Amino acid sequence: MARRTAISGFPEWTSAQRMVEQNIIDQLRHVFELHGYVPLETRAVEPLEHLLSKGETSKEVYLLRRLQEDGEQQDTEQRQAAAQRDQLGLHFDLTVPLARYVLENSGKLHFPFKRYQIQKVWRGERPQDGRFREFYQADIDVVGATTLPYHFEVEVPLVMAKALAKLPIPPIKMRVNNRRVSEGFYRGLGLDDIQGVLRNIDKLAKIGPEKVVELLKAEVGASETQAQACLELARITSESASVVDQVRELADKYDVSSEILDIGLDELGYLMDAAQDELAGIVVADLSVARGLDYYTGSVYETDLVGHEDLGSICSGGRYDELASDGKTSYPGVGMSIGLSRLLSRLFATDVVTSSRSVPTAVVVAVTNEEDRAMSNRIATQLRERDIPAETSPTAAKFGKQIKYADRRGIPFVWFVGAGDDGADQVKDIRSGDQVDADPATWSPVAADLWPTINHAE
Amino acid sequence: MARRTAISGFPEWTSAQRMVEQNIIDQLRHVFELHGYVPLETRAVEPLEHLLSKGETSKEVYLLRRLQEDGEQQDTEQRQAAAQRDQLGLHFDLTVPLARYVLENSGKLHFPFKRYQIQKVWRGERPQDGRFREFYQADIDVVGATTLPYHFEVEVPLVMAKALAKLPIPPIKMRVNNRRVSEGFYRGLGLDDIQGVLRNIDKLAKIGPEKVVELLKAEVGASETQAQACLELARITSESASVVDQVRELADKYDVSSEILDIGLDELGYLMDAAQDELAGIVVADLSVARGLDYYTGSVYETDLVGHEDLGSICSGGRYDELASDGKTSYPGVGMSIGLSRLLSRLFATDVVTSSRSVPTAVVVAVTNEEDRAMSNRIATQLRERDIPAETSPTAAKFGKQIKYADRRGIPFVWFVGAGDDGADQVKDIRSGDQVDADPATWSPVAADLWPTINHAE
Repeated sequence: MARRTAISGFPEWTSAQRMVEQNIIDQLRHVFELHGYVPLETRAVEPLEHLLSKGETSKEVYLLRRLQEDGEQQDTEQRQAAAQRDQLGLHFDLTVPLARYVLENSGKLHFPFKRYQIQKVWRGERPQDGRFREFYQADIDVVGATTLPYHFEVEVPLVMAKALAKLPIPPIKMRVNNRRVSEGFYRGLGLDDIQGVLRNIDKLAKIGPEKVVELLKAEVGASETQAQACLELARITSESASVVDQVRELADKYDVSSEILDIGLDELGYLMDAAQDELAGIVVADLSVARGLDYYTGSVYETDLVGHEDLGSICSGGRYDELASDGKTSYPGVGMSIGLSRLLSRLFATDVVTSSRSVPTAVVVAVTNEEDRAMSNRIATQLRERDIPAETSPTAAKFGKQIKYADRRGIPFVWFVGAGDDGADQVKDIRSGDQVDADPATWSPVAADLWPTINHAE
Repeated sequence: MARRTAISGFPEWTSAQRMVEQNIIDQLRHVFELHGYVPLETRAVEPLEHLLSKGETSKEVYLLRRLQEDGEQQDTEQRQAAAQRDQLGLHFDLTVPLARYVLENSGKLHFPFKRYQIQKVWRGERPQDGRFREFYQADIDVVGATTLPYHFEVEVPLVMAKALAKLPIPPIKMRVNNRRVSEGFYRGLGLDDIQGVLRNIDKLAKIGPEKVVELLKAEVGASETQAQACLELARITSESASVVDQVRELADKYDVSSEILDIGLDELGYLMDAAQDELAGIVVADLSVARGLDYYTGSVYETDLVGHEDLGSICSGGRYDELASDGKTSYPGVGMSIGLSRLLSRLFATDVVTSSRSVPTAVVVAVTNEEDRAMSNRIATQLRERDIPAETSPTAAKFGKQIKYADRRGIPFVWFVGAGDDGADQVKDIRSGDQVDADPATWSPVAADLWPTINHAE
């Protein structure tokens, strides 16, 4: 017999958990669409060649092969090379497919192209540290043709922060920074290996300030003063545009001036001012945010789940000047991605988010005897026509058993046809035991009982 | 450079089409949940061994392999066999994963287990005849432990018919039959190769009655009279439970009596009576519905899209006594599956279903000059707080250009800050050109303009 067990790295939720996941995806969709982002769904596969074009991720790719190809395959090196060129792999993120989609459809798209995309992605990594091999990502990106104004670097984190702040999850803190501020400051200090400094600053939380100073000296040739200055910059945080004054003060202290720094500070101040209006305390400036990846060229973003900081960033991204290029035109973009399955996995494991019941049903209509099932069906239909989720009892067993059917699933109400003294129907709230006369044409549960509600334990 | 072109068999919709797809998926979900079906999403992969357990479909499977495994692989037969055993493949339908899921979670599930599942599936077939290699299926199934009452064979097609009849698509005709009627009738005629008769009756639409008679004689040893009787049975159709009388009349004519036939007719009559109430003329009895697959044991269902019968059945299924078995317990089920991508592909290709605009946005708030962008942003925020999808113009270009931005995307309204004589805001319906004073705290578009609407050309 085939294995019928879980496969490590391929999580499956219970139906109650899937209701939570759907609810959260629906809420994200709603906020993204309210802001004018269009839905996009790309195929699950991309040519291997395209998946490998960023180099570093090659080991994560799942290759696809049709079973019947196996017989055909020859193992000469030449044929293998040819097969590899044409090979398809599953996408490991939603950015690489977006880049391909934009190039493929550039003639048909209107720019700036604002899209959201919520899909499964696959990575062949070892499933450890809460990493999955199959998981949902929820991305938004804005892509321009040739140019993309800075204000989209403000819009994207604000849309994401609003979307996340509304979810039934612990509070979030979105930490923002601007590569231009870091780069301008480092250059002004006389350090030119910007990537080297960023790479080491990125380790601050992991290895502590002393080791970072050591590495800055050893790897990028910083003096003690330069290394300390980098560290001081990384320590700056602010809930407002006052971050600009803090950085300027530090720059004055180290006699740093740079045009890139000025541009970066203008931008960061603009972002913090905009965040003040609606998201004060949720979007914060944090000059330690470096992001390891070298393709970010402006704003960078990371997001902590408050109380679950050990999970790492649940939503990250930034500005990249070259998402894609076809030789003639380059397509700059700014985007963020939520690691949805990883987030949900934590919330489910700690029972932080739960569904009020395990099925959508609000009412089970009891069946008195099998011959009268059609009567019960008509009541259920009447309730559904009024948008009340209802099902007819699967059996005409004793009422105690039918109530148990509802109870096991967390269904709050059981309907009894003609159970009242005068032959009226009655409905029982099986939690309180209250049973009252009810008419399927007018009765409604309270709003909180109509559909399963998502509960968030503080 | 990597290929940046479409890959045959892996369709991608435009964002406007994706909005239609999402709308349809949302509507299906809503009807399924109203009937108490729980959402389920299974992992995309299953062990190859499990995928192959039904034999016939082996050639359709996409195998998965991590790129880095390539180096490790040895080609001895033994190792290949071992690798094949552990190999994962992409699921090619949602029934095989359901069977595995039920066995894996049988201790935790409550039976009867009613679930819906809307996911992509993958098949390595040649992409021809409108067949896709990646496509959506939308399934509902009811699974029992040991037993499953007949009334679920009535419920499942009625839920599906209601769901499909509500969609913005051409009308549907769901054709139902019962294997027991066919089997009882054939046995009563003296024909014992039931699968053989069904297999040939299934070809009726394709090859015509004369060839079917020939095949019945040649392959299952039917006499001319027996073959004609089978053909006459297959010609019976009815919009009501009168189908029972028609079959009985035919049985009398050929002197056929059979207990299985009686059971089958009782069941089919029950189904047609139930359909009469709400779905008269949509769910019809059609004794030619045979379904090629041999695992159906009771009701069988097929669905035509009226005017697009050449597309084949868009939603099929039936009762199977053994969805899964763990040796101790067997799990009978009844289910149906919509071939969603195939259906949408036809509707999109013929422009039968379209979205009223290509983005969710209802209102573009114009920007007078870049310094005043924050003012426009505040208006857009106010509109969104009242659930009106709005975005701020990407540039402070001339108003004509900003209107063009909206027009290209089908966005109906452009908002001008302080454009009225007394400094009030104004909103322009760019379709009619009407421009009127408007307050972001109270103005609303008419309901039909609030979100993109799905239009169905009759």
